[in-house]
Amino acid sequence: MPSLTLTFLGTGTSQGVPMIGCLCDVCTSHDPRDQRTRTSVIVNDEKKSYLIDTTPDLRFQCLREGIHNVDAVLFTHPHTDHIMGFDDLRRFSEIRDSEIPIYATSETLTKIKEAFRFVFDTPKPWKGYLRIIPHIINGNFRLDDFEITPIPLAHGMMTTQGFIFTKNKKKLLSYFTDCQEVTSEAIAAAAGSEILVLDALRDKFHPTHLNFSSAIDAAQKIQAHQTYLTHCCHEVSHAKKEASLPAGMFLAYDGLKVVLDS
Amino acid sequence: MPSLTLTFLGTGTSQGVPMIGCLCDVCTSHDPRDQRTRTSVIVNDEKKSYLIDTTPDLRFQCLREGIHNVDAVLFTHPHTDHIMGFDDLRRFSEIRDSEIPIYATSETLTKIKEAFRFVFDTPKPWKGYLRIIPHIINGNFRLDDFEITPIPLAHGMMTTQGFIFTKNKKKLLSYFTDCQEVTSEAIAAAAGSEILVLDALRDKFHPTHLNFSSAIDAAQKIQAHQTYLTHCCHEVSHAKKEASLPAGMFLAYDGLKVVLDS
Repeated sequence: MPSLTLTFLGTGTSQGVPMIGCLCDVCTSHDPRDQRTRTSVIVNDEKKSYLIDTTPDLRFQCLREGIHNVDAVLFTHPHTDHIMGFDDLRRFSEIRDSEIPIYATSETLTKIKEAFRFVFDTPKPWKGYLRIIPHIINGNFRLDDFEITPIPLAHGMMTTQGFIFTKNKKKLLSYFTDCQEVTSEAIAAAAGSEILVLDALRDKFHPTHLNFSSAIDAAQKIQAHQTYLTHCCHEVSHAKKEASLPAGMFLAYDGLKVVLDS
Repeated sequence: MPSLTLTFLGTGTSQGVPMIGCLCDVCTSHDPRDQRTRTSVIVNDEKKSYLIDTTPDLRFQCLREGIHNVDAVLFTHPHTDHIMGFDDLRRFSEIRDSEIPIYATSETLTKIKEAFRFVFDTPKPWKGYLRIIPHIINGNFRLDDFEITPIPLAHGMMTTQGFIFTKNKKKLLSYFTDCQEVTSEAIAAAAGSEILVLDALRDKFHPTHLNFSSAIDAAQKIQAHQTYLTHCCHEVSHAKKEASLPAGMFLAYDGLKVVLDS
């Protein structure tokens, strides 16, 4: 029985790959791993399913992966490419016939409310409306068998929440996307994780995202058993980039599943 | 040289078809015409491209249809399934290196602003940000060779804008989606159009959408040369429904192109 399954729903930067109207080698590649929807993952154990972020591609991602259930949603930050599929969650509250707990900072929740005000109205005018229970992130919290540790990460003018999933005192997953640096506190918190997921936009420096060299540097300090790099732009050819990564580091791609046995 | 080409980018209701987690005959159909992204069209003449609505599926729709340019965007109404892909327009302002004119009622523009406030900020913090020129719809307006007539249509508590595209005094296209009725004024305005596109959610009555019988009734009064029904839910099997429609009426599907020669 796996203790955790991580499925990459999307691994692309905000415009996705291919980009609309771009004829570069990666945007016209026939390697399916070069087709990246917006960055999101779903974390499962034998009982529950936790979604991180609701991208504009959420419906496609759920259809592609055959996802029929979401038990809770965690939000990293309120940028468009991470929240605009929010209303597509309503299918899950409809299927379970109950509210979906969502976890976000107050800043993120405010932005979600501005964009999807009708979700927060009561009473609902219609039974098919999305029903949620909002929880403001303010320190560690539990999701069933997991303890979740939110880790603030600098992302330009914004702060992203990284999430560490711990079960039976084992750090199973550290998920750090959309960050420009990983502080020594964040490195210490994630150190020795079974799985590490890290932002890695491209080779060149970027003012709000890790590039490959800074992501690899952080990963070498964290020393996870397996590291996956994500949120890549169209400058990144999957096959070429993965071949160049250090041992134990991999490039994530849409649909990739990582299974940890208990 | 075609005087107008209409491409259906999406023809589904707000949850799309298939719906997440649904195993009904239509949601599991292998007929590609039963796969409906959220409702939107693009209208081209030999010079220009006008997009109607920005669904959450906009990026997929543009990649599927190979769309590299949008000259203006018209909005019917601010429901989630018609606006949440708004920021994916930024690729078009990047390609053309200029603002994209958008046309919406003040109510729709207010909702778009609430959801995508950063698009309306100046100066832009980044050159890749979406750049737009907003226009409030307030009577007829011109888009290059077309005169556009907005037609208010009741859609539950909201008013949708239908759009009639006229060129050289010929009504080439009347596009009426997300409406529960077509008033006698709207019927008169659209009468004799070359192409009519009408909302038709399903067979059963719905409080905010036309069903098939009311759509067919309105279409028979408008007497367009060709009528296409759209915004269908998963109760509608393409093959079965289209076989039952009166002469001159068709069920739209994602990717369908209708070409009017001049």
